[in-house]
Amino acid sequence: MATIKDVANDAGVAVGTVSKVLNGHHVSAENKRKVEESVARLGYQMNYYARGLKTRYTYTVAVIVPDILTPFFACLVYYIEQELYRYGYRMFLCQSLHEAEKDSYYLQLARQNKVDGILGITFNTTQLSQAGDIPVVMIDRHLDNSVCVTSDNFHGGELAVQQLFARGSRKLLFIRSGSRLSSETLKRGDGFAAACREKQLSYEVMDSGDDACGFNGEGIGEYLQMHMTDGKLEFDGIYTSTDGLGLTVLEQMRRMNIRVPQDVQLIGHDGLRHLNRGAYLLSSIAQPVEDMARAGVETVIHLIRREPVQEMTVLPVTFVEGGTTRTME
Amino acid sequence: MATIKDVANDAGVAVGTVSKVLNGHHVSAENKRKVEESVARLGYQMNYYARGLKTRYTYTVAVIVPDILTPFFACLVYYIEQELYRYGYRMFLCQSLHEAEKDSYYLQLARQNKVDGILGITFNTTQLSQAGDIPVVMIDRHLDNSVCVTSDNFHGGELAVQQLFARGSRKLLFIRSGSRLSSETLKRGDGFAAACREKQLSYEVMDSGDDACGFNGEGIGEYLQMHMTDGKLEFDGIYTSTDGLGLTVLEQMRRMNIRVPQDVQLIGHDGLRHLNRGAYLLSSIAQPVEDMARAGVETVIHLIRREPVQEMTVLPVTFVEGGTTRTME
Repeated sequence: MATIKDVANDAGVAVGTVSKVLNGHHVSAENKRKVEESVARLGYQMNYYARGLKTRYTYTVAVIVPDILTPFFACLVYYIEQELYRYGYRMFLCQSLHEAEKDSYYLQLARQNKVDGILGITFNTTQLSQAGDIPVVMIDRHLDNSVCVTSDNFHGGELAVQQLFARGSRKLLFIRSGSRLSSETLKRGDGFAAACREKQLSYEVMDSGDDACGFNGEGIGEYLQMHMTDGKLEFDGIYTSTDGLGLTVLEQMRRMNIRVPQDVQLIGHDGLRHLNRGAYLLSSIAQPVEDMARAGVETVIHLIRREPVQEMTVLPVTFVEGGTTRTME
Repeated sequence: MATIKDVANDAGVAVGTVSKVLNGHHVSAENKRKVEESVARLGYQMNYYARGLKTRYTYTVAVIVPDILTPFFACLVYYIEQELYRYGYRMFLCQSLHEAEKDSYYLQLARQNKVDGILGITFNTTQLSQAGDIPVVMIDRHLDNSVCVTSDNFHGGELAVQQLFARGSRKLLFIRSGSRLSSETLKRGDGFAAACREKQLSYEVMDSGDDACGFNGEGIGEYLQMHMTDGKLEFDGIYTSTDGLGLTVLEQMRRMNIRVPQDVQLIGHDGLRHLNRGAYLLSSIAQPVEDMARAGVETVIHLIRREPVQEMTVLPVTFVEGGTTRTME
């Protein structure tokens, strides 16, 4: 098997130059080309473990999501993996599955230099406080002292009200699920309430319980049933904290023969598409998933390289039409 | 920082015993407990790289899927990650995104001992032939000389015909997408044709083109339009090679005011659920995703440990009702 000396001889450069190229440090374009050609020609392969011992870099990042079944997380991971690959990093994918144990496990790995950094969507504050100086970036969660990439949840709530209002709704309802995402869904609700007050619109807030997936269809059905007057729903515009919840609400309204969007307009939050690729499943406040993935990866790479980062990155949301809102009046 | 000797002293056992416990070899339950308690008490952490140099195991498996956006692959990865974790393995997730380059990259990593094995759903034969003695297990692809875990695609096609027939359909149509999955969708079609011939049913086969996702709605719409006689579709039962394709067909039939399942029954293939958790999106031949993940992980772990494995594991499919078929006659 070829050694680093063989490569240096073949390329006609010093061993140190070969080492620089292999470790991604700067050399002249000419030398870089020579070394890369020799590496390819001789089939030279770096000794990974020896390299690990020396630089303590593994070129791996652990990405922790609650689970990969949830379409929003699958979308995020779809973009994160591609972005990490672009930087030459491999991705450990870990599903915390609402268990703190796995978060701890990956923090442990980072402490043992088995991963260079963590990009997480699930830590609880207790776990994160144990992270020490390990590069950890949170996506869509703002915790004390953590570096965070998120989308503008407060404005998402405002935007939903503005869109419902501009399309003719006057009596609004916000439905949220009291999931682990509470800090975020609360912000969406805060934005919703602030915009309603600003427009002097009457509004109500319904908490559909702590079902993380928002599939508590019966509870929502009962609530809507209770707010029917003379066969008409008291609300003419509904905003839900997630698209999953929105689809559940849509299903309940169909069963009750409430016409959407003619009688009631509905806006969800996330921007989910049919099988993750097709049309939007409902009108929604879309999170900029690709930008969030890109910013998250960029931030964790900067932290790993001990470069300065922005502590909080907030990316803009947009309204997308998905058939559950009317055309603008 | 605590050393392995400190742990041995604290636990009152030999250094070799500590080493055995740390490497997952068998020792008495009593000694195992003692060592684990001392490891926890002293906060001992193994030197990963030194360990890597010695055993050449990284306790990582690379899982390669075409992409994680496709719900079926997300479901597979959902179960694979949990199963690998149960075995003490971490998962590199790689999306090949229909590019051979990334497959090569992970084969390269395996050759450099950076991953212990590969669980893949995407290799082309050329790539795989380069794998040498690297533990590689294919899920849902049967290539020459590869170890493979799959579900019974031929019987899936037969089962679709049996179910359509038992529920009253007599003139059948199979629609497939000519995607990279062609070897599999062809088998589904073979089973379909064999069952039709056995029952002496007339049938047709339509190829919707090489759109991997099966979203070629217009082409399918035109085809169905061409097969309308006196406002009625010539077929009363349709089987599609994937659920994605089935949903596209369903959408086209709705536009044409063809009633499903009253006029035409429809069966897809995969068993996709609403947001990956809820009701089935349509009646379907469901793949045993969880069992396939479990068998795939078990097989690659056996290969890594140089234990004997079954070269081909074929798991049974089942019919699931999702509202696009009538009740049994």
